[in-house]
Amino acid sequence: MAAFEPKNPGYRAAAVAMFERQPAMRTLGIVIVRLSPGEVELAMLHSADFTQQNGFVHAGIITAGLDNACGVAAFTLMPSEADILTVEFKTTLLAPARGERFVFKAEVVKPGRTLTFCEARAFAEHEGKTTLIATMTGTLMAMLPRVGASHEPRGLRAQQ
Amino acid sequence: MAAFEPKNPGYRAAAVAMFERQPAMRTLGIVIVRLSPGEVELAMLHSADFTQQNGFVHAGIITAGLDNACGVAAFTLMPSEADILTVEFKTTLLAPARGERFVFKAEVVKPGRTLTFCEARAFAEHEGKTTLIATMTGTLMAMLPRVGASHEPRGLRAQQ
Amino acid sequence: MAAFEPKNPGYRAAAVAMFERQPAMRTLGIVIVRLSPGEVELAMLHSADFTQQNGFVHAGIITAGLDNACGVAAFTLMPSEADILTVEFKTTLLAPARGERFVFKAEVVKPGRTLTFCEARAFAEHEGKTTLIATMTGTLMAMLPRVGASHEPRGLRAQQ
Amino acid sequence: MAAFEPKNPGYRAAAVAMFERQPAMRTLGIVIVRLSPGEVELAMLHSADFTQQNGFVHAGIITAGLDNACGVAAFTLMPSEADILTVEFKTTLLAPARGERFVFKAEVVKPGRTLTFCEARAFAEHEGKTTLIATMTGTLMAMLPRVGASHEPRGLRAQQ
Repeated sequence: MAAFEPKNPGYRAAAVAMFERQPAMRTLGIVIVRLSPGEVELAMLHSADFTQQNGFVHAGIITAGLDNACGVAAFTLMPSEADILTVEFKTTLLAPARGERFVFKAEVVKPGRTLTFCEARAFAEHEGKTTLIATMTGTLMAMLPRVGASHEPRGLRAQQ
Repeated sequence: MAAFEPKNPGYRAAAVAMFERQPAMRTLGIVIVRLSPGEVELAMLHSADFTQQNGFVHAGIITAGLDNACGVAAFTLMPSEADILTVEFKTTLLAPARGERFVFKAEVVKPGRTLTFCEARAFAEHEGKTTLIATMTGTLMAMLPRVGASHEPRGLRAQQ
Repeated sequence: MAAFEPKNPGYRAAAVAMFERQPAMRTLGIVIVRLSPGEVELAMLHSADFTQQNGFVHAGIITAGLDNACGVAAFTLMPSEADILTVEFKTTLLAPARGERFVFKAEVVKPGRTLTFCEARAFAEHEGKTTLIATMTGTLMAMLPRVGASHEPRGLRAQQ
Repeated sequence: MAAFEPKNPGYRAAAVAMFERQPAMRTLGIVIVRLSPGEVELAMLHSADFTQQNGFVHAGIITAGLDNACGVAAFTLMPSEADILTVEFKTTLLAPARGERFVFKAEVVKPGRTLTFCEARAFAEHEGKTTLIATMTGTLMAMLPRVGASHEPRGLRAQQ
C-alpha cells in the first residue's frame, strides 16, 4: 500500500483516545500493538468466555477485532474534527479461531472525504504457528460537523 | 419464507444444546426467544461492557448476535450428525445500536446439503420504539462425518 | 417495507431517464417493469451471449441486473439534483441462472442523505416455474453538488 | 501469497478451456493475460456498449471480470474432475471505471476441498495511468461427481 499523509498531525493520540473510549475493547482484551497512518495492528489473548461450541473464538468476536482495526486505521487519516462510524463489512472465515493469541491487521485501501475503504486480516497464534483465519473488507464513514450546525452532542447523530 | 421440513426430528433440542455450549453467548447475555425450523429469534440486554466510543453497542457484538441467529436457524435444518461452521457474512449497519434491548431475527433463505444461506436483522428497542439497526446475509456450512472416517473429535476438523 | 415519500416529485421520469442513459442496460436487454418510490422491478430475457460454461447466465450479468435495480430504487428517493454511485454490494448465488426470463426486484431498506441501503432478489422463470436464484445487499451514494462549487461536469467527479 | 501446488497437472489447459466455454467472456471481450496456480490476470478493452449513465463501465461488468478472475484462479487448484460454481462475492467500488483498458487480477487466499476463497482487484488504465477501481472477495465451490452417482449431465446439477 502507498504511504498515506494524515490530515490530523495529532492522528496517533486521537486514534489511541478513540480506541480507549471503547469499553468493548477493554472487555474483550483487545489492545493496540502498532499504529501508523492508514495501518494498525491489534491483538487479543484467548479467553474461554468468548468461545463457541467447539472451543474456538466466536466469529463475532473475531469480527469485533477486525472491525476495530479497520476503524482505527481509517480514523488515522480523518481530520481532527471527524467522528467515525462503520457502514458495512464482510467477514470471511478461513479457518477455526484456535490459538493462544489473535492479531488483527488492517490497512486503508482508499481514503476519502466521506467514505474510507479498508481491508483487514486476522491471524491465530497457536503452538508457535501463525495462521490466517479471517479476512474483512469494510466501509467506514467520517461524520463531520455540519457547517452552521449544531449543538447536538457528538455520537448522538443518526448515521447519515 | 416457505415453511421448512427439518431433517432432524430433534432439531429443537439439538439447536438449543448447540447454542448453550457457546460460552460467548452466555458472556454476551444472548438468549433464544423463539425457534422454529429455519427461523430463530435471539435477544440481548444492553451492557455498557460491550459499547464503543459513543455508548452504542459495538458492531462486532451486534454481528455476534446476527451470526449466531443465522447459525441456529441453519442448524435447525441440518441432519442430526452435522456440526456447523460460518463461512462468511456481511453486516450492514443502518443505525446506531442504541437501546435497552436488542433482538436478532434470522431465517434460512435456502438450505442445502453442504451450504445454507441465511438472512438476519437486528433491532434496537429504545424508549418503547423498535428500530432496524443492522442486516446480515451469511453462508453456513454443514460439517458431516465422512463415510469410512474418522476418530478425529468433533469440532477439531479444519474448515474444509 | 414502509412506504417512502420521494423528495423529487418527478422521481419517476428522473429514474427512467437515468436508466435509459445506460447503454449497458440496452446491451443486456434489461428493462424496467415496475417502479414506485423505493422499489423497482427489472426484467431481462435469456441471451446465449451472456452465459457461462454450463449455459447459465453469468453471475456478473445477474449482478448487473441486481445492482441496477438497487440503483434505480435508491435513485427514486434522492433529491432531483443528485447523481448516484454504487459504493459496494454483495451477491449471493443460490441456484443456477437457468431460465427464459430473469426478474430483478429491489427495495430500499434505509434511505439517507448520503448513503442509501438496498436489498434485491433475482428470480429465474423456467418452464413456468419461478426460482429465487440470487440476492444482493448494496450501498448506494448520492452525489450532490457542493455548495459554492463547481464547474466540473456531472459524472466526472471522483467517488468521494 | 504462498505458491500453490495444483492437483491437476493439466490445470492450465483445463482453466483455459473452462474460460473459453463461456460465451459471456467473448461477448464482453475479456481475455486471459496471465495464468499460474492460484493466480490469474484477465483484461478487457473499453466498450461503450457496457457503460452506465456517466460513460463509465457498469459495475456489473466490472464484477463479471472480477468474478471470472476468481473463478479461473480457484479452478487452477481443483482436481481435474471438478466443475466450479460461485457461491457469493462482495464488490467494493473505489473509483469510477473510466479507462481504455481494464485489468482483473485474482488470487486464491485459501483453497479447500469444497470451498476456495479468492481476492481480486480491478484496475483501469486511463491516459497512461493505472488506478485501482474495485476489489472483490469471493467464495467458489468445487462440484465433484458423487461416488456411485450419476448420469446427470455436467452443469445441470443444482448448486448444492
